[in-house]
Amino acid sequence: MPSDLKKLIADTQNEFRNHPATAQVSFRSSSALQDGFRSVASLRDHRVIIDEPASLGGTDRGPNPVELILAALGSCQEITYRAFATALGIPLDSVSVELRGDLDLRGFFAVDPLVRAGYQRIRGTVKLRARGATAEQLDQLRNVVNAHCPVLDILANPVPVAIDVAIEA
Amino acid sequence: MPSDLKKLIADTQNEFRNHPATAQVSFRSSSALQDGFRSVASLRDHRVIIDEPASLGGTDRGPNPVELILAALGSCQEITYRAFATALGIPLDSVSVELRGDLDLRGFFAVDPLVRAGYQRIRGTVKLRARGATAEQLDQLRNVVNAHCPVLDILANPVPVAIDVAIEA
Repeated sequence: MPSDLKKLIADTQNEFRNHPATAQVSFRSSSALQDGFRSVASLRDHRVIIDEPASLGGTDRGPNPVELILAALGSCQEITYRAFATALGIPLDSVSVELRGDLDLRGFFAVDPLVRAGYQRIRGTVKLRARGATAEQLDQLRNVVNAHCPVLDILANPVPVAIDVAIEA
Repeated sequence: MPSDLKKLIADTQNEFRNHPATAQVSFRSSSALQDGFRSVASLRDHRVIIDEPASLGGTDRGPNPVELILAALGSCQEITYRAFATALGIPLDSVSVELRGDLDLRGFFAVDPLVRAGYQRIRGTVKLRARGATAEQLDQLRNVVNAHCPVLDILANPVPVAIDVAIEA
């Protein structure tokens, strides 16, 4: 599997170099609010249930949206570590991520217009086990991962978001 | 339930006005890569499985991280619509969201350093059914939602992210 993955990455890089149009992709989400604050999101064939804890008015049948943001960042870091470790031939036994996002709820609750609604900051730790890798290799790996992790870029830098509103009869 | 929620929101706003320290909260995610690109994230008592589709080297046992970003935004918009419709006394029968994120995979695959790794843009539509609400009320609702939706703020504006790396023996 690692060698298959290495070949897949190299082949994909060649394909995108030669045909940049094939690198243009879109992902989609379709979600609908159910009772209370519970939402069901469909992502291709996958479903995710989102809710708020009781303290925030929900029924706690799933993680809330800002928790999903952290799960997206953690898993994206992990996938990007494994992809580039494989591509660069750096040994990597395991990777896990602990994250914490700090939020001032006065933003969401419209109590203070100077307080942002989203995370003030996100902090955390990537834990790597990589027997046989040198410190230099792991440094190189960290730098390339942080330069190419899609969700890290999405959070750390602005993404233009345009959402229309359609009123249904 | 709507009137309970209205009271919960008003009580929470009063509490945060009088005691801003109680509005400071943290959310956490703990995730670990399993086989291939599959990760399991724990968010309090909730688990989310993340994977990549086969075309990106995974086994497609869950949505991928950038799809989770869209699910977080869609559900956060929905929850924020319901919360502020309730707080403002604006009728809202249903809310659903369709989103699309455009990505140039040359960024993630390190093919072109000028291409960002994350979404180039996110576009979509919020569908509201709100019998009995006036156009002015729905305009007011849209404005307050977009000013206070945490995930919209997280995506549209930069979030400081600091991730340490710990090497395990």
